[in-house]
Amino acid sequence: MVKPCRVVIVGAGFGGLQTAQSLANSGADVLLIDSNNYHTFVPLLYQVATGQIAPEQIAYPARTILRRASNINFLMAEVEEIDFSAQIVKTDNHAIAYNFLVIATGSRTQYLGVPGALDYTLGMRTLEEAITLRNHIFSCLEKATQESDPTKRQELLTFAIVGGGATGVEIAGAVVEILRGRVRRDYPTLDLREVRVILIQSGDRLLADLPKKLGVYTYNRLRKLGVEVYLEAKVSKVNLRSIYIDNHQEIATATTIWTAGLEANSPTEDISTGKKGKLLVNSTLQSSEYANVYAIGDVAYVDNDKPLSGVAPEALQMGVAVARNIKRQLRGQLPQPFNYFNKGRLAIIGCYSGVGKIGGFAFTGFLPWLMWLGVHLVYLPGYRSRVVILLTWIHGYLLGDRAVRLILSSKETNITNYRTSKTR
Amino acid sequence: MVKPCRVVIVGAGFGGLQTAQSLANSGADVLLIDSNNYHTFVPLLYQVATGQIAPEQIAYPARTILRRASNINFLMAEVEEIDFSAQIVKTDNHAIAYNFLVIATGSRTQYLGVPGALDYTLGMRTLEEAITLRNHIFSCLEKATQESDPTKRQELLTFAIVGGGATGVEIAGAVVEILRGRVRRDYPTLDLREVRVILIQSGDRLLADLPKKLGVYTYNRLRKLGVEVYLEAKVSKVNLRSIYIDNHQEIATATTIWTAGLEANSPTEDISTGKKGKLLVNSTLQSSEYANVYAIGDVAYVDNDKPLSGVAPEALQMGVAVARNIKRQLRGQLPQPFNYFNKGRLAIIGCYSGVGKIGGFAFTGFLPWLMWLGVHLVYLPGYRSRVVILLTWIHGYLLGDRAVRLILSSKETNITNYRTSKTR
Repeated sequence: MVKPCRVVIVGAGFGGLQTAQSLANSGADVLLIDSNNYHTFVPLLYQVATGQIAPEQIAYPARTILRRASNINFLMAEVEEIDFSAQIVKTDNHAIAYNFLVIATGSRTQYLGVPGALDYTLGMRTLEEAITLRNHIFSCLEKATQESDPTKRQELLTFAIVGGGATGVEIAGAVVEILRGRVRRDYPTLDLREVRVILIQSGDRLLADLPKKLGVYTYNRLRKLGVEVYLEAKVSKVNLRSIYIDNHQEIATATTIWTAGLEANSPTEDISTGKKGKLLVNSTLQSSEYANVYAIGDVAYVDNDKPLSGVAPEALQMGVAVARNIKRQLRGQLPQPFNYFNKGRLAIIGCYSGVGKIGGFAFTGFLPWLMWLGVHLVYLPGYRSRVVILLTWIHGYLLGDRAVRLILSSKETNITNYRTSKTR
Repeated sequence: MVKPCRVVIVGAGFGGLQTAQSLANSGADVLLIDSNNYHTFVPLLYQVATGQIAPEQIAYPARTILRRASNINFLMAEVEEIDFSAQIVKTDNHAIAYNFLVIATGSRTQYLGVPGALDYTLGMRTLEEAITLRNHIFSCLEKATQESDPTKRQELLTFAIVGGGATGVEIAGAVVEILRGRVRRDYPTLDLREVRVILIQSGDRLLADLPKKLGVYTYNRLRKLGVEVYLEAKVSKVNLRSIYIDNHQEIATATTIWTAGLEANSPTEDISTGKKGKLLVNSTLQSSEYANVYAIGDVAYVDNDKPLSGVAPEALQMGVAVARNIKRQLRGQLPQPFNYFNKGRLAIIGCYSGVGKIGGFAFTGFLPWLMWLGVHLVYLPGYRSRVVILLTWIHGYLLGDRAVRLILSSKETNITNYRTSKTR
């Protein structure tokens, strides 16, 4: 082992956090930087947005996760610039020298050039966006109880979701279930049969990166739950009170949730990029230009013939691989190529049903739903969160109740206020 | 029972909610109005502010509490005006006619004319203020880890609390314990002996409305925990980076928590008031001017020789009494005077110690601490919240851990941003 060496990791998502944890007690001096002081367990954001669980249950303070390892420090800051030749990361207050740099800043929403999408849609990528969405959904219900004009009430009770990937499917299933579920008892004066949930997918099937059979099952299942699913449909414009599909069909809605596009959330423009602004790395996850710079997770574009699908297990495995490669470099060995071991994919479609693909097997129904809950419970950081979420799920799924219907913060729920909470 | 009659209750705090619940299935048509869609369990706000429990655990959706009674409806709205002669409550969108009106809008912070107090102190009266305070405290710690100038770091690590009542004592005890407790392990680069917690009380003892012995015990106990307690000291000015005591002593601090004064949070100026803008009611809790208007809780001033102390049990008992009186009026009977049955008072001073007064007995130490936890657990609405908070307390008090150290919302923690979250 050479003398202590500074590894700077930017981003405390699945990849960055895993890299830090895998470098625990490695002898390297590790600094993890994030603009939030917590790690967000992103797969459960949709449950926060729909009031099923509290935000605190899926956000875990980064310092608490890291405190067991004395060689890892945390800095809450926004990285503004990286000087790769001087090997310095610049934040608003600091200039931090590094020997090795791991960029793990994830992705952000891309609005695909759709007019109005940035200003008038709600996102689902950060904890703050999920809380904003929860406030918005329950504000729409409150306003609907007070609205005597049927057209305006229908607008408040229509929820459009753009994007038919896992996030879109999960939020569509959850929204329709909440409003057809026991929440009805809270709104006796409201006819919740008026509620419309609309899922808009540009491709010809849902969950496009899973086997076709699963997309078809998901489509049928969502339809049965009451979701209107549009396939091969493109949103062409969004404004405060409606969306336009394929330039002609207008749907009046007070709520459009955008889950469609993403691009790299890169802190630098000074190294080579692949598709969607992602940082180009070779098979060892090293930048093609700098052997001491790694990029992992959603911000990375691995230059080989196996495209990544942007799921948490990839980022986690990349974090382990990068930590191993840095340790190899410290010992004077060559880094090794990263190989993703695909344990499978799972997605949940409302209560009691899901889809999954494990190895060559694609399966649907109750089993993948149960596996989804189990897997997410196991991967959740912090055993207390696990206990609380397990209790909440048991209560919610068995008794059909939803717990966290609070409308916090801005009392004036004007959609244009939400813009400040967006990532871009 | 006469024909259905409309009772409008303004405010979903302890008093208003209890009135509504006591009117369940009474035959009256009850409408509860609040600007939030949830009831806040105020006595535990300080635990939210210090990151011990999640906000969602002490806020319960008003509709969920009320849904068992089909004669009670809820309206989320801000009451802007009351026309007592026309018997109409006006919100931003509605004009609601009433036969009986119960005003239960509580209190709000009064800054006692201290320059800068409104702009530069943080409050503890609402859930949003408690979350803002949590964000602020943990932001100060994050900034302190990045501050190399010892003067500026000391400013970030100094926490001043104005007001030596139960709220001030509880928050002072909690802040000092968190920063001397296991949170230290999260900030290995910070010397937390630099932390100062300062409690400023204008009177000659703490907890002035409890027996003197308890105030003395609390004083000694807080000092032992490391709190600097100033008695007979008045804050004369507050600015962004310091407070002034008695016009001369300046204390540099990035955090001033204001728990000192309160006044009625009245939605009307059209009926008679007593001290602090409170609505004057006679012993039956009826307005002296209108026999069909009641005021209860912190917004009410009962015109007799027993002053109220503004605690939750008073508001709850007043809610029961008002519901009974309205039912009597509906039956053509006369309302009866309200008598407060004082079950006792409890306050908590950090871990394992508290003070209490029950009947003629004043006692201190572990027993009132345990009773405080038990009583608050029992009164908390919703059995799930009880289970989760019990688990959190067991974990927190036995293992010394604090769970919810998230810094949410505004990443730029500039104290002037907080102003928008204030009640006035």
